[in-house]
Amino acid sequence: MEILDTEIELTGKSIIGYSRANSTGAVLYGREATTGEQLDPPYYSASNGDLQQAVSLATEAFPTYRALSRKNRAEFLRAIAANIEGLGDQLIKRDMQESALPEARARNERDRTCFQLRFFAAIVEEGSWVDARIDTADPNRKPAPRPDVRSMLRPLGPVGIFCASNFPLAFSVAGGDTASALAGGNPVVVNAHFSHPGTAELCGAAIRDAAQKTGMPEGVFSLLFSAGHEIGQALVAHPDIKACGFTGSRRGGLALLKIAQSRPEPIPFFAEMSSVNPVFILPNALKERSDKIASAFHTSLVMGVGQFCTNPGIALLPRDNRGDSFVKAATEKIKSGQPGVMLNAGIFDNYRSLVAARSTDSRLRTICYTTSGQGAAPALFEVSTQAFIKTPELQEEVFGPASLVVRYNEPEELIDVARSLEGNLTAAIHWAAGDEALRDRLAAELESKVGRIIYNGFGTGLEVCQAQVHGGPFPATSDARTTSVGGRAIERFTHLVCWQDAPEASLPEELRNGNPAGIMRMIDGNRTRDAVL
Amino acid sequence: MEILDTEIELTGKSIIGYSRANSTGAVLYGREATTGEQLDPPYYSASNGDLQQAVSLATEAFPTYRALSRKNRAEFLRAIAANIEGLGDQLIKRDMQESALPEARARNERDRTCFQLRFFAAIVEEGSWVDARIDTADPNRKPAPRPDVRSMLRPLGPVGIFCASNFPLAFSVAGGDTASALAGGNPVVVNAHFSHPGTAELCGAAIRDAAQKTGMPEGVFSLLFSAGHEIGQALVAHPDIKACGFTGSRRGGLALLKIAQSRPEPIPFFAEMSSVNPVFILPNALKERSDKIASAFHTSLVMGVGQFCTNPGIALLPRDNRGDSFVKAATEKIKSGQPGVMLNAGIFDNYRSLVAARSTDSRLRTICYTTSGQGAAPALFEVSTQAFIKTPELQEEVFGPASLVVRYNEPEELIDVARSLEGNLTAAIHWAAGDEALRDRLAAELESKVGRIIYNGFGTGLEVCQAQVHGGPFPATSDARTTSVGGRAIERFTHLVCWQDAPEASLPEELRNGNPAGIMRMIDGNRTRDAVL
Repeated sequence: MEILDTEIELTGKSIIGYSRANSTGAVLYGREATTGEQLDPPYYSASNGDLQQAVSLATEAFPTYRALSRKNRAEFLRAIAANIEGLGDQLIKRDMQESALPEARARNERDRTCFQLRFFAAIVEEGSWVDARIDTADPNRKPAPRPDVRSMLRPLGPVGIFCASNFPLAFSVAGGDTASALAGGNPVVVNAHFSHPGTAELCGAAIRDAAQKTGMPEGVFSLLFSAGHEIGQALVAHPDIKACGFTGSRRGGLALLKIAQSRPEPIPFFAEMSSVNPVFILPNALKERSDKIASAFHTSLVMGVGQFCTNPGIALLPRDNRGDSFVKAATEKIKSGQPGVMLNAGIFDNYRSLVAARSTDSRLRTICYTTSGQGAAPALFEVSTQAFIKTPELQEEVFGPASLVVRYNEPEELIDVARSLEGNLTAAIHWAAGDEALRDRLAAELESKVGRIIYNGFGTGLEVCQAQVHGGPFPATSDARTTSVGGRAIERFTHLVCWQDAPEASLPEELRNGNPAGIMRMIDGNRTRDAVL
Repeated sequence: MEILDTEIELTGKSIIGYSRANSTGAVLYGREATTGEQLDPPYYSASNGDLQQAVSLATEAFPTYRALSRKNRAEFLRAIAANIEGLGDQLIKRDMQESALPEARARNERDRTCFQLRFFAAIVEEGSWVDARIDTADPNRKPAPRPDVRSMLRPLGPVGIFCASNFPLAFSVAGGDTASALAGGNPVVVNAHFSHPGTAELCGAAIRDAAQKTGMPEGVFSLLFSAGHEIGQALVAHPDIKACGFTGSRRGGLALLKIAQSRPEPIPFFAEMSSVNPVFILPNALKERSDKIASAFHTSLVMGVGQFCTNPGIALLPRDNRGDSFVKAATEKIKSGQPGVMLNAGIFDNYRSLVAARSTDSRLRTICYTTSGQGAAPALFEVSTQAFIKTPELQEEVFGPASLVVRYNEPEELIDVARSLEGNLTAAIHWAAGDEALRDRLAAELESKVGRIIYNGFGTGLEVCQAQVHGGPFPATSDARTTSVGGRAIERFTHLVCWQDAPEASLPEELRNGNPAGIMRMIDGNRTRDAVL
């Protein structure tokens, strides 16, 4: 890693291919999240002309970028990672200013972002992810000859990416959506989040410089700033954009999803939206290690001021002394902590108004809740399983360190709660010896409700690996066949293409007889790295 | 194969699990397609109560069906195939009556239907299709331990299937959608097509009997008849239906897709809709073998009275003497043939009105077209590339044996035509030595426009195999990442589920340490059939 000697000068301008936009649209400022103070420079909203140019460059770049060798594409991704590391403390500092996230988190997230880029580079180089299949011809078959049929996943075209407020690095300009879309062979046009424009510009410059250095076609990447929603909406609606990736609120995700579905040519819109991540604490687990679970629950709840998609927004506890002790232990931990500064004023306002509403909701008991102070204090509320099941609104996400403790009298009620759930990213089951039957019945229900079931742990702390699933049934995401984290994320920005009786020279490398790509393929139904005989 | 001694008596009643509905709704009759004569028995439209019961049984059956061994599920699919064969000539005869399809086609389609069921049975038994992935734990990793993460595709739940008019067997009650949904572990509720209720009942009884014989939970299959659209719409809207499969018209597909997307919980709606399957005939191919291509074009055009999704609705030919000769040869073949009887009166009326409109369209030249006679006569029209490109309506499917010959002056115009295309299931390129550069440039454009590119052949005659793609960009289908034919069709009715730090006993067989399923998996990024060490 080579740290730049000098800091990059922020320009406040959108990046359109290898140029900067000269937009004079509405101005937006990054803000010191802790104080609300404006940070220089002013950012000018991209114009519709900027958007058109970005998409037009991406469309031109697509055939060239798609045709690059896997090695070249991997080099590009690795160069982005190196450039992001090269930004050194400038990136960390700006990220911390704009997000109020602590330094350790900023550094971890930076490292994860670079890890993801290299992870996808390795997947591209290895190459088997395209699911190459070959069924060989049989000219002598009766009654009709069998043709030669070959197929694989191919890139879709220019992809629009929406940045998340809560991961200024790992789910933003150079985050998982961008990494997987670029890895899959698609140019990207990124819509920066208004909450961290400086961080976005630094990452955008890192990608642009990497693209130039590794000889990518101009237009493989562009970054648009905007103060309002118009540019984002126009990006989804643009006829040459072939798919989008989004991480954010349910309201925002659904509004954009609707645009994607209503286009003359509808496109896939992969939205990762809201989740309350229920935590089921079974009787014997509580008996065995109540304090340990309460402590881990508190850590998960307050981590990043509760601003994780996998934050434990619901916890199921028995209505008995042990449950009471758990609540008491968690409450003491909350009270001994400090309120946290949230990502931006809008998120803080939203959190305050949602917890205030819960504090006056007659169906709930307030366990702990405070309005005092500038930061977001964790809040706990309580409700019975019966009231929870008949009140769907209680499943709405409160983005921040709030959780709803749902108390059960009989373990059987947990099954009813599981059945009543909307789709979620995760659910956790805390169990111990004696809980096995309940644990497995519960998991069988949860399988249809969540993307990931965690045993004796919490959903926060998402591992980036081939098997990871960061997805789940609606409204957790818009497509439960996909994941936005992990190896399979690359499959989202693709479509299936099949070649029948194609001349060898006209086939993509992955489908040629000799298997020059050296990848695992399916030949006449068998998975193999062999050549076609 | 054991042919039944006696014919099955048709009842005219929907099949709800292992019972028959006693509906008294609107009556619908199968009809002798050639004469329009009513065929016994009358079919009674399912009531909303029938639908509720079918979905309720499917929902109850799901956890049991999902948990069956792969062997059991494969046995069920094979038993369906055996039962369909056991129907012998009764099925063939009824199908021919209701569809006017010739005997050879009916027998071929029956054989294909049974082949598909056994094809998916083999895929289920082999088992690797679930994309099982395991990333092993590392308790000593710094700064945080690495969890054990395992994931795979899992069945979704009850699936609604819509039958196609043009494939009374292979895309209907026991067709590819049903086979792939059942293979994937999902109960199905089928909405029969009004055009062939008797054929539907016979296939439905074959599935029900197979389910009983192989000990499947009641509700794994139901079949609903209906005279109108209400039951189909209610099926898509039912909260316990988790996905749908559809093959049919663009209008019908889009109407149902909208219902699927507007539900409180939107669901995947896999629609295979319209396609005009452009055929690009390059200069040297025409020079080398004009008559041969013209003859094959004619065969593809009139096959099944043009009622294939892959029918060649557009043919691109040079505007020169060779092109003229091709048109002449195709026209002579058409004129020497007989009009064909279409699947039903509605389809025939629609064909007649669309070709009549084309015959008076001032932008087109009518090459051959006749209104005389009872059957559908093939029709050819001609247009310039320039007029074609600026008239998007000319890309609308005319379901039947009609084709639009688009004449080019310069080969370069073919690239412009390819760029102007909507999404299609297939495109064909006919080439010979000297055409290579144009062929490959054209294919590069077509890759973004179609699901399958055929070289020196036609899209009709779809091979059922692992590599097949019967899909394509909108409006050919609603999801270009999928296919409705071939091995990957099973992946449609699934979602991703991940288990983190799960006890071995709580995992599906496919994710257990010892690999008892014996399938190819990805372990720590490597594809292998090994156990977890």
